[in-house]
Amino acid sequence: MRTLKSTLPELNPPLRTLMGPGPSAIHPRVLEALAKPTVGHLDPSYLELMDRTQDLLRQLFRTDNAMTMAISATGSAGMETCVVNLIEPGDPMVVCVNGVFGGRMADVAERAGAEVTRIEKPWGEVFEPGDLESVLATAKPKVVGIVMAETSTGAAQAIEPISQLVHDAGALLVVDAVTSLGGMPVEVDAWNIDAIYSGTQKCLSCPPGLSPVSLSQRAMEVVLNRKTKVQSWYLDTTMLANYWGSDRVYHHTAPINMTYALYESLRLIFEEGLESCFERHRLNHLALRDGLAAIGIEFAVREEAHRLPMLNAVKIPTGVEDAPLRRALLDRFGIEIGSGLGPFAGQVWRIGLMGHASRSSNVLLLLSALEQLLIEAGLAIEAGSSVAAANAVYVAHGK
Amino acid sequence: MRTLKSTLPELNPPLRTLMGPGPSAIHPRVLEALAKPTVGHLDPSYLELMDRTQDLLRQLFRTDNAMTMAISATGSAGMETCVVNLIEPGDPMVVCVNGVFGGRMADVAERAGAEVTRIEKPWGEVFEPGDLESVLATAKPKVVGIVMAETSTGAAQAIEPISQLVHDAGALLVVDAVTSLGGMPVEVDAWNIDAIYSGTQKCLSCPPGLSPVSLSQRAMEVVLNRKTKVQSWYLDTTMLANYWGSDRVYHHTAPINMTYALYESLRLIFEEGLESCFERHRLNHLALRDGLAAIGIEFAVREEAHRLPMLNAVKIPTGVEDAPLRRALLDRFGIEIGSGLGPFAGQVWRIGLMGHASRSSNVLLLLSALEQLLIEAGLAIEAGSSVAAANAVYVAHGK
Repeated sequence: MRTLKSTLPELNPPLRTLMGPGPSAIHPRVLEALAKPTVGHLDPSYLELMDRTQDLLRQLFRTDNAMTMAISATGSAGMETCVVNLIEPGDPMVVCVNGVFGGRMADVAERAGAEVTRIEKPWGEVFEPGDLESVLATAKPKVVGIVMAETSTGAAQAIEPISQLVHDAGALLVVDAVTSLGGMPVEVDAWNIDAIYSGTQKCLSCPPGLSPVSLSQRAMEVVLNRKTKVQSWYLDTTMLANYWGSDRVYHHTAPINMTYALYESLRLIFEEGLESCFERHRLNHLALRDGLAAIGIEFAVREEAHRLPMLNAVKIPTGVEDAPLRRALLDRFGIEIGSGLGPFAGQVWRIGLMGHASRSSNVLLLLSALEQLLIEAGLAIEAGSSVAAANAVYVAHGK
Repeated sequence: MRTLKSTLPELNPPLRTLMGPGPSAIHPRVLEALAKPTVGHLDPSYLELMDRTQDLLRQLFRTDNAMTMAISATGSAGMETCVVNLIEPGDPMVVCVNGVFGGRMADVAERAGAEVTRIEKPWGEVFEPGDLESVLATAKPKVVGIVMAETSTGAAQAIEPISQLVHDAGALLVVDAVTSLGGMPVEVDAWNIDAIYSGTQKCLSCPPGLSPVSLSQRAMEVVLNRKTKVQSWYLDTTMLANYWGSDRVYHHTAPINMTYALYESLRLIFEEGLESCFERHRLNHLALRDGLAAIGIEFAVREEAHRLPMLNAVKIPTGVEDAPLRRALLDRFGIEIGSGLGPFAGQVWRIGLMGHASRSSNVLLLLSALEQLLIEAGLAIEAGSSVAAANAVYVAHGK
């Protein structure tokens, strides 16, 4: 057994500008909320806060679903919640895979006992209804899973046309909105989504730790008519419904302070207004795009219409070393951007403009820093060109 | 679709003295840590913090287990982690049930596909080795689960003699230490525990949100030699080991700020010293016990040696209404205590003296308030008698 250390270092995390795939920049008001005094998980004030938080989550998801709440764990647990509640052993499920998170959903589904059929598309591309038609006819899935905002590639998947097809085939639709929620329109009711999950650490400007989820009435009927218990006690929505619903039956001890943070992050979004918030994400993406174009950096997603505004996956210029450049961004400028995953490792950087990180000051800072480091790496770049191009976008939009 | 609210109320949680079964009082330094600036989950500073946190968790669990870490969810997810990693469908498991949390472990095990044999004891009692002998011989379990500190009854289970028996029978031992860890000795290596879990919101003086767990080398060999994948992707220790270990392979986005809080709470414990911390919990329990005895309130656990110091389950005096009294404690004095669960509902109150809540000022405040409310309820109690009895304990111990 080790002996006790005589002194334990103080906690002094460095100040970072978080522009990776998440966690993203936290709004100062959210950090303040996080440190408010803890109350009990059945305190009248907390029950009221849960109601208000649920109500705001419904407005953010654009749904009237009763079963809308935050799972007491991070986004991947939200994915697992949607899958394990809907799937019983032997159920057929189709999962659309064009990046890490589609692949993860297939893995989660197999662990839940689903007979999984994967539909694959190259990384950086998205699914068209035609890609699913024949598989839906042969696999006859109970559930179809798809990622709206593939954080590993920056690809934006249109949900509505897929949803139509899935429901025509008699299946339920599960959507990953971890990176999209709060940064672009997510229309749960209008798009007829049956189960959806997100995370707090992306466009909600809140630390990681909770996963907002919503399940439709139709999905909950499937859950309530299961032949077997949900395999996860912790993620069983029938029990969670008794705590988040009017009965307030004790299930687990809710992460009180994280709920404070989530509530404050939702307040910030609705104070700004959903439309303005989405517009801000769009504009900063355009400014970044033009800035990067000025120094010859291309997006991993070829089609402009398929690019996410909040997650910009871009190709690493030839002759530039991935890890040393990211490390220099971090050490010299305090900026974090993300590396590529899987086949994109060493090929792609992921630049997040999510929530509170989606600001012109961040775009200009990153471009200034990146330009300098690329010039030092020997690339033929005109100093100041990326910043000038980005500024031109802001000016053109009257900002 | 509802229309947007024009004004959203500010977050203003009331100040409570948390003396229930958890969440317990949070130390101010832990709340400060929670609000420190967020960094990325692969930031060099965060990886270093994970190492330091793991090291302190090993010291707290009194183990050299490599697989010691915090699960990114609350205590019940820690329970699920231990069970689903060790159990494959059809595996026999014995669960000792003498309260809510033993029952929960049996439920979790059944959902994981275990053939569960329950050994039951009345609520408020504990298990002797003789209670397990014949069942171990007939059920031949792969895993035995037991609760060290049954939060629903306040009973303290001795682990060492049970562990001997379980290992003689060739089984692995899973221990629930949610309420005990940090408030009384928990000796993972000396007691030969194979898998153990806890929560941050009890004796660690930290908000709910993380679940410290530790698995022995023997347990990890069982996990690594499974025939089937762990049913939960989120709780799969083989993947978590790659993130918490030296490889740092991305699994899920860790709840950064909760790790800050956990680290600070561990620093506080080791600054005080483990032995002093346990002694403080013991002393405040004795003072509370004598104070309650002076006003005729009895413990639900008859045997003194089987009472937890940090969770005092006491019988509600005849003629006193449960919910109105607890509500008066909350509304007039700002004190939260816990209600009884299951067969103890309406019969028992649960008074927590956990971590930062285990202070003489809390004991004296609660006794003063409770005494007053019981007098108002018509009980023949001498005003000041409970406080005097508690103070006598502190004086006798030179405090």
